[in-house]
Amino acid sequence: MSIKTISSGVTAAAGFRAASCAAGIKYRGRTDMAMICSTVPCAAAGTFTTNKVKAAPVIWDMGIVKQEKCAQAVVVNAGIANAATGPEGLRLCEATAAFAGEVLNIQPRAVLLGSTGVIGPQIPLERITAGVAMMAKDLSDTEAAGTAASRAIMTTDTVNKEFAVSFELPAASGDGTVTVHLGGMSKGSGMIHPNMCTMLGYVTTDCDIDSGLLQQALSSVVQDTFNMITVDGDTSTNDTLLVLANGLACNARITAADESYSIFCEALLTVCRALAIKMAADGEGATRLIETRVKNCDTKEHARAFAKAVVGSSLVKAMVFGKDANCGRILCALGYAGPDFDPAKIEVYMIGDEDTICFYRDGKVQPFDEDAALAILSADHVRFDCDMQTGQAEATAWGCDLTYDYVRINGDYRS
Amino acid sequence: MSIKTISSGVTAAAGFRAASCAAGIKYRGRTDMAMICSTVPCAAAGTFTTNKVKAAPVIWDMGIVKQEKCAQAVVVNAGIANAATGPEGLRLCEATAAFAGEVLNIQPRAVLLGSTGVIGPQIPLERITAGVAMMAKDLSDTEAAGTAASRAIMTTDTVNKEFAVSFELPAASGDGTVTVHLGGMSKGSGMIHPNMCTMLGYVTTDCDIDSGLLQQALSSVVQDTFNMITVDGDTSTNDTLLVLANGLACNARITAADESYSIFCEALLTVCRALAIKMAADGEGATRLIETRVKNCDTKEHARAFAKAVVGSSLVKAMVFGKDANCGRILCALGYAGPDFDPAKIEVYMIGDEDTICFYRDGKVQPFDEDAALAILSADHVRFDCDMQTGQAEATAWGCDLTYDYVRINGDYRS
Repeated sequence: MSIKTISSGVTAAAGFRAASCAAGIKYRGRTDMAMICSTVPCAAAGTFTTNKVKAAPVIWDMGIVKQEKCAQAVVVNAGIANAATGPEGLRLCEATAAFAGEVLNIQPRAVLLGSTGVIGPQIPLERITAGVAMMAKDLSDTEAAGTAASRAIMTTDTVNKEFAVSFELPAASGDGTVTVHLGGMSKGSGMIHPNMCTMLGYVTTDCDIDSGLLQQALSSVVQDTFNMITVDGDTSTNDTLLVLANGLACNARITAADESYSIFCEALLTVCRALAIKMAADGEGATRLIETRVKNCDTKEHARAFAKAVVGSSLVKAMVFGKDANCGRILCALGYAGPDFDPAKIEVYMIGDEDTICFYRDGKVQPFDEDAALAILSADHVRFDCDMQTGQAEATAWGCDLTYDYVRINGDYRS
Repeated sequence: MSIKTISSGVTAAAGFRAASCAAGIKYRGRTDMAMICSTVPCAAAGTFTTNKVKAAPVIWDMGIVKQEKCAQAVVVNAGIANAATGPEGLRLCEATAAFAGEVLNIQPRAVLLGSTGVIGPQIPLERITAGVAMMAKDLSDTEAAGTAASRAIMTTDTVNKEFAVSFELPAASGDGTVTVHLGGMSKGSGMIHPNMCTMLGYVTTDCDIDSGLLQQALSSVVQDTFNMITVDGDTSTNDTLLVLANGLACNARITAADESYSIFCEALLTVCRALAIKMAADGEGATRLIETRVKNCDTKEHARAFAKAVVGSSLVKAMVFGKDANCGRILCALGYAGPDFDPAKIEVYMIGDEDTICFYRDGKVQPFDEDAALAILSADHVRFDCDMQTGQAEATAWGCDLTYDYVRINGDYRS
């Protein structure tokens, strides 16, 4: 199977258009609303925050994904989260979907919603409806429209995040193959933590696939991608990842976990992993990406727990920021991750482009060359490998360093 | 029952002497070793880190507390943790205890050990033995000796931590009461997180109490004190809390969970809570103490989980540093704490000396006076109250704000 990276985002797939606008929800002088709309109804799947306090748009989307399994448009705003807003917050969702349905000429329950920003304040409905009206007239299937949409949903993000791929699947006609596209955008750089990381993510595809299998693919892929990044250990009230599949590629419809399904999953994994890594690298105040791979572990679940503990450790994060090879902290993080292991058997490595340093083996920290360690810790992408010696399972997690700027950004977020 | 605070620490109780010295383990120009020694053998109890990677002195102490239930001296060093040091690290413990036993004229297995500092390096035995020899000659029962010992075990701590109380118990003679003393010292300001917070704590008492009950009292008290503070969410390899009880107060020996036992537990709670709060307030880089009380909760365990999630949230910590009343973050932390609750029913408050602000009720963030909120968030001791409306259980957790200095301290710890 061959998955090709292409330069695009949510407008990569046939039939998907995007728009964005400056609705003045909270920010001034920048776009803060985005819309994605398919020309035909789509199979819809989603995963959502595990936080007990769910924002109103999360509650709205969960209902649609669960009951309708079908949608056609997404309306997103940045600036205010519409979380902890009580019944008014839910009424705003209903009114937004009703208005968008009207201007887009689709059912209100075909409209998915997303919000990100400050928790607490109510969003003025008139700004939302004005934004929706503007965007509905402005929908475009160009790459630029998708890129503009990915910018409009940013909060403390410093770069927009898009990724897209194409791949071949058997044609519905039975004659050869067709090219299928799958692309997405996401935002998130703070409040990022497993289950779901605090983020909004929207993936569109022209693949023809059963909605049950679409949900199954998403639920599986999210475990190794969006749920494997962490910035600050805070799980947000608004995390949402949605996939819309409109079938316009005219592939033979995927209705079973067959080879086509595997190819689709691989494509979805590629896009979700790329977006997840972009978010980890753009963590609030981050200067460098931290990647931790745990291998030869007894179970996949344990491997994930170990990898996430290392990238989530404040002390490991601060150590990478300071380029200080205080590597016992990695061992310490493995030790409190939860699963059992024998500290006398594992090996831990710093992986550089040129050098690999085994700094822990035989139950103790090994002497290492400080200059080589400094070079590895100075790279933009800092990698640690943990060999647990208990089995064959493997998992990778991504995070970022902890910097003065994280504190600055989060000490004064509302202003 | 009346528990009186007294000005002292580990030398408050009869028969306990302390000493400290500059052994040059890692630091220069400061003391870095401490010793506590009782004139007679003591009942010993302890709680230790839950980290799978346990430092050598933790392994040593766990063996003694579990098998001997009895000890007479403690030797502690700061600078190097003796963690991830393999068999050499354990041999250092054996050699240290053997040497200390010889110079103090007690059994090696009556010597408890503690280390704190960098993970990885080996500690030179000759520095330890030179320190032990110096301190053995210098033991003193003065308050100043206890204070000097509490300073010697500091790492990134900015202040030393001591606390002591006295209370009355029935006399062993059957004639009236005797005054019992209980005092302690602790260190810890980073790598501080529940189960055990990263810390060393040593409590001494002249109470006469069965070692089983001493362990039971300690295990209970630690749940509401040392296990309820967090600085950075990292659970260390070296956490150790030890209690030594030598019986020299000549109270009627406590051998059952009777009223005397309750008074003893209250005294132990008072000292452990005071030491725990001092550690939270002195969290690395901290400028202010954060206290979160969860009340009217269905179970004590759930109340603890909620309270710890709030004080452990990087976003809440950064918000307190920035005096920015972005209070939805408290709600968000409750939401990912784990236990279930109805967001529409709970109430959350900021508690000031003069004003109390209910900023969340009826499922939404309430409007509040920004000046009053700023005044509350500017206090040295910032308090939040969460009313879960599901029962009668209550728990309090303590933490500190997240500051530029935390990042600076931990970005360059080894140098």
